[in-house]
Amino acid sequence: MKIALAQQNYHIGNFESNTNKIIDAIENAKRGGAEIIIFTELSVCGYAPRDFLEFNDFINQCYDSIEKISRHAVGIAVVVGGPQRNPNKEGKDLFNAAWFLEDGAVKAVVQKTCLPNYDVFDEYRYFEPAFDWKVIPFKGKKIALTICEDIWNLGDNPLYRICPMDELMDQQPDFMLNISASPFDYDHDDDRKEVIRANVLKYGLPMAYCNAVGSQTEIVFDGGSLAMDAEGKIIGELKYFEEDFAIVDLPVGKTEGAKVSTGMSDHVLNKDMRVSKQNSPGQVISYLTARDNIAEIYTALRLGITDYFKKMGFSKAILGSSGGIDSAVTLAIAVDALGAENVRAVLMPSQYSTSHSVSDAEKLSINLGNPYDTIPIADVYDSFLKSLKPVFKDLPFSLAEENIQSRSRGNLLMAIANKFGYILLNTSNKSELATGYGTLYGDMAGGLSVLGDVYKLQVYALAEYINRDKEIIPSNIIRKAPSAELRPEQKDSDSLPEYDLLDKVLYQYIEKRQGPKEIIAMGMDEALVNRVLKMVNTNEYKRNQFCPIIRVSSKAFGVGRRLPIVGKYLS
Amino acid sequence: MKIALAQQNYHIGNFESNTNKIIDAIENAKRGGAEIIIFTELSVCGYAPRDFLEFNDFINQCYDSIEKISRHAVGIAVVVGGPQRNPNKEGKDLFNAAWFLEDGAVKAVVQKTCLPNYDVFDEYRYFEPAFDWKVIPFKGKKIALTICEDIWNLGDNPLYRICPMDELMDQQPDFMLNISASPFDYDHDDDRKEVIRANVLKYGLPMAYCNAVGSQTEIVFDGGSLAMDAEGKIIGELKYFEEDFAIVDLPVGKTEGAKVSTGMSDHVLNKDMRVSKQNSPGQVISYLTARDNIAEIYTALRLGITDYFKKMGFSKAILGSSGGIDSAVTLAIAVDALGAENVRAVLMPSQYSTSHSVSDAEKLSINLGNPYDTIPIADVYDSFLKSLKPVFKDLPFSLAEENIQSRSRGNLLMAIANKFGYILLNTSNKSELATGYGTLYGDMAGGLSVLGDVYKLQVYALAEYINRDKEIIPSNIIRKAPSAELRPEQKDSDSLPEYDLLDKVLYQYIEKRQGPKEIIAMGMDEALVNRVLKMVNTNEYKRNQFCPIIRVSSKAFGVGRRLPIVGKYLS
Repeated sequence: MKIALAQQNYHIGNFESNTNKIIDAIENAKRGGAEIIIFTELSVCGYAPRDFLEFNDFINQCYDSIEKISRHAVGIAVVVGGPQRNPNKEGKDLFNAAWFLEDGAVKAVVQKTCLPNYDVFDEYRYFEPAFDWKVIPFKGKKIALTICEDIWNLGDNPLYRICPMDELMDQQPDFMLNISASPFDYDHDDDRKEVIRANVLKYGLPMAYCNAVGSQTEIVFDGGSLAMDAEGKIIGELKYFEEDFAIVDLPVGKTEGAKVSTGMSDHVLNKDMRVSKQNSPGQVISYLTARDNIAEIYTALRLGITDYFKKMGFSKAILGSSGGIDSAVTLAIAVDALGAENVRAVLMPSQYSTSHSVSDAEKLSINLGNPYDTIPIADVYDSFLKSLKPVFKDLPFSLAEENIQSRSRGNLLMAIANKFGYILLNTSNKSELATGYGTLYGDMAGGLSVLGDVYKLQVYALAEYINRDKEIIPSNIIRKAPSAELRPEQKDSDSLPEYDLLDKVLYQYIEKRQGPKEIIAMGMDEALVNRVLKMVNTNEYKRNQFCPIIRVSSKAFGVGRRLPIVGKYLS
Repeated sequence: MKIALAQQNYHIGNFESNTNKIIDAIENAKRGGAEIIIFTELSVCGYAPRDFLEFNDFINQCYDSIEKISRHAVGIAVVVGGPQRNPNKEGKDLFNAAWFLEDGAVKAVVQKTCLPNYDVFDEYRYFEPAFDWKVIPFKGKKIALTICEDIWNLGDNPLYRICPMDELMDQQPDFMLNISASPFDYDHDDDRKEVIRANVLKYGLPMAYCNAVGSQTEIVFDGGSLAMDAEGKIIGELKYFEEDFAIVDLPVGKTEGAKVSTGMSDHVLNKDMRVSKQNSPGQVISYLTARDNIAEIYTALRLGITDYFKKMGFSKAILGSSGGIDSAVTLAIAVDALGAENVRAVLMPSQYSTSHSVSDAEKLSINLGNPYDTIPIADVYDSFLKSLKPVFKDLPFSLAEENIQSRSRGNLLMAIANKFGYILLNTSNKSELATGYGTLYGDMAGGLSVLGDVYKLQVYALAEYINRDKEIIPSNIIRKAPSAELRPEQKDSDSLPEYDLLDKVLYQYIEKRQGPKEIIAMGMDEALVNRVLKMVNTNEYKRNQFCPIIRVSSKAFGVGRRLPIVGKYLS
């Protein structure tokens, strides 16, 4: 069976653009002789449409798009994703559906059974799970069509009580199709192929799998669509992190079904993978900074920037360039994503800045070829202190004065952004955000956070990756001890544990949901662990006001991590 | 049957405090001769614990609390709420459970069936729905014990496919107990009694219902626990918006079951009420500003402030007092919530401020008796302009300069807050937030938003309510045309439609999820509607960085409203 896989990057709610893109691919597939073309989950509206799904008007537009697309489903069958109204009175109003279009009309609609509702996923907020399963007859064969999570409910510890492929097997399908919107993260980047293979081997059926690509605010979809024969051999694989299209010839029909090999990683077939909890701890530091991971993280971050700007209708970025490693890495990735001429760096030294901060930042921008300005903050800072004198009187220098400096910089950057139409890129890293080591409305300002899901040690690894061929980030920026430079001789290590210890604790607590007892049992110092966990929990209020973070881990701050601000737990 | 209702205000994750509070009430109930005492949903940890539920350590602490509480369940049966580990391999790891404690031990555990996952609710993120239902035998009677949403699945258009009370009726229960965490909003404030009555009449059984009270960051629980006999008569009702305790004598046993009267409001018995969608439009303006609503909104906002500060461990607030109505109303409520001596107002006039702005703000603080300072922003503003001159050159005054003023104020307020340990109260209203008529890090700064779920017309109604006995808010503040005072002669109406039109469109779009066609069909001007909806959708990025908003409507910005920032829909 000749099947076209259309791995496309959609703009959520932009029906005209999405529909045109889908129709172009159909025509392309027809020219290539494909018998079926499959798109991705919720392709007509883009994934995830979130609360737009609560608007009848939005659903109507999805239906209009499907109607337009169906007119092109002539001489080819088309599988697109889109919401379907639930015809039953009981249950939620919508299904997450795969629409099978043939002969210019809707021939079948399949509903998703396993609705992910963990981390960044909220599907049960909108959709009723399927409770009825039917194969789709096509050209004398029977198709088992499922949607994303539907094929992930494997193993002896499944997250859902019903497994739709098990239900479909009674009807003796000949091959499997799956349309997905499965995001990238470096903890799970190899799982997808293993899951597809586990299904193929369990059911003895080949599968064509089409996954979304592109970044949607914080969530990066990495593509990697593929086709696999019934023996588990990949017979076609699409690109990662970019749009792609291929026609594969899938040898359809059932082979002798083999139960999932017990030799397959428990990790993959465990519900804990899906909800990412109770995972066993890993070799954190070396794992986090592994070269493979870092290259993928870099690519995901670059795509996150490109798509955010494109989809928001902006082309130019601004950021504060401090001479530190976080802003250097952010700037380098932004230049790669948007072009040097579109990224403006602003150096804003204070009386506490060391001389090398300015020269290092200048050297960086010279290496990258991006425009930069220097605006010292002394005058603004002094005017704040003068205005506050009647209130502050002679109280000693404290965190308040540090924050004034940081917020003066935030204001200057936002002023230039507002004046000229830039988006301010935030440069905070995940270790800082976790511990609250940042100033609200100061260095925490910005429209998009590039490194907010990247631990400090990973930032160093990114810097090395960026410098892999030649020195782009000056080595002095990489070598010097991290400092916020908001008071004399300040070092991050005055306020924070050393990053190699800190990041280890943070990863176990945030990504792996290990509690204090478990982390201490790993050999970490008890006082350190309690101190770090308290920092994380008491700073929820700061992160709550933070901008979207490009997600690359299995647990990023933001939409996928939801904690009560007034909570009193480990705090 | 003598049943104690313990309507308590819990601190999420503060196990020691919650457990002690629960045990105190048990001892109190014993002294009063109660046979059963019921608490509220997830009482041992507080509702909603959110992602704390993903930590084994947190669940262990819940279990420890239940164990401690069970030791006091001697001579009385105790119903507390808490998570329960799912003993089955299939499905999510937890249930949302009601623990029935008797003779010093756990006698039964009931799992919640209907898991709300709309608006602010995320229960399916953590919990597996019940699939097995059993009454609890007690003193020769049989109890039908359910949890919150379980009794809301009524009518001919139910949100869930299974209704747990229907399942329990086969076992002939004698009375119903329900433990809830059902928040306040002015759209649904009367629904709760109607739902309880509908259950009582449908099943012919009396019910004791215990609801949570207290504010948890943004969600305000209003209590109002009650007991109703099998004829639908209220035989005991607890206070609203405060902790309360009562022992009621519930006449147990089944009466002749009566089907739900068809005369009962469709609104109540419709799933659309639960998900708040596709509601028919109401008489917006008069409804929104009705005196009954306003008194409740006022009380909810006051409780929202009090609890936020108490649970965060703060006692003092600061805010910018502009002489406008939003800051005046915020200040008045804050003074009521925290005490005049604990609320510091800061007047920050600029060259564009009118003279009455300062005198009105001064008069307000004199009326309220709270401390205030005046810090003109001219010097700070000028220093920003001077520093930016090399970049801005001679470009004309624009939004950038307006925002600099607003952010200078934000910085001054945050500096004082940081120096002295205040929480900054935000004064933005819902109409502004909806349209993006505010400055990120400027007037949008703050730790808690008091009026962010209150439309401008409701702010006026609140001012009148505050002044109901005497003039607290100077009449000039109420009468003058709203202005941000960021450029000469500026008025809100330069940038926004008149508030009586704007609020009407916003309410239909935000609360009622009406699309452009529906709103235009209500007689609103097409250009106006399109303009307003576009404003709302293009400003998602600003609201995404906004602080928690005390929720009083059925659809507040924040955790209960989730839109994709890069979306391109009506924008």
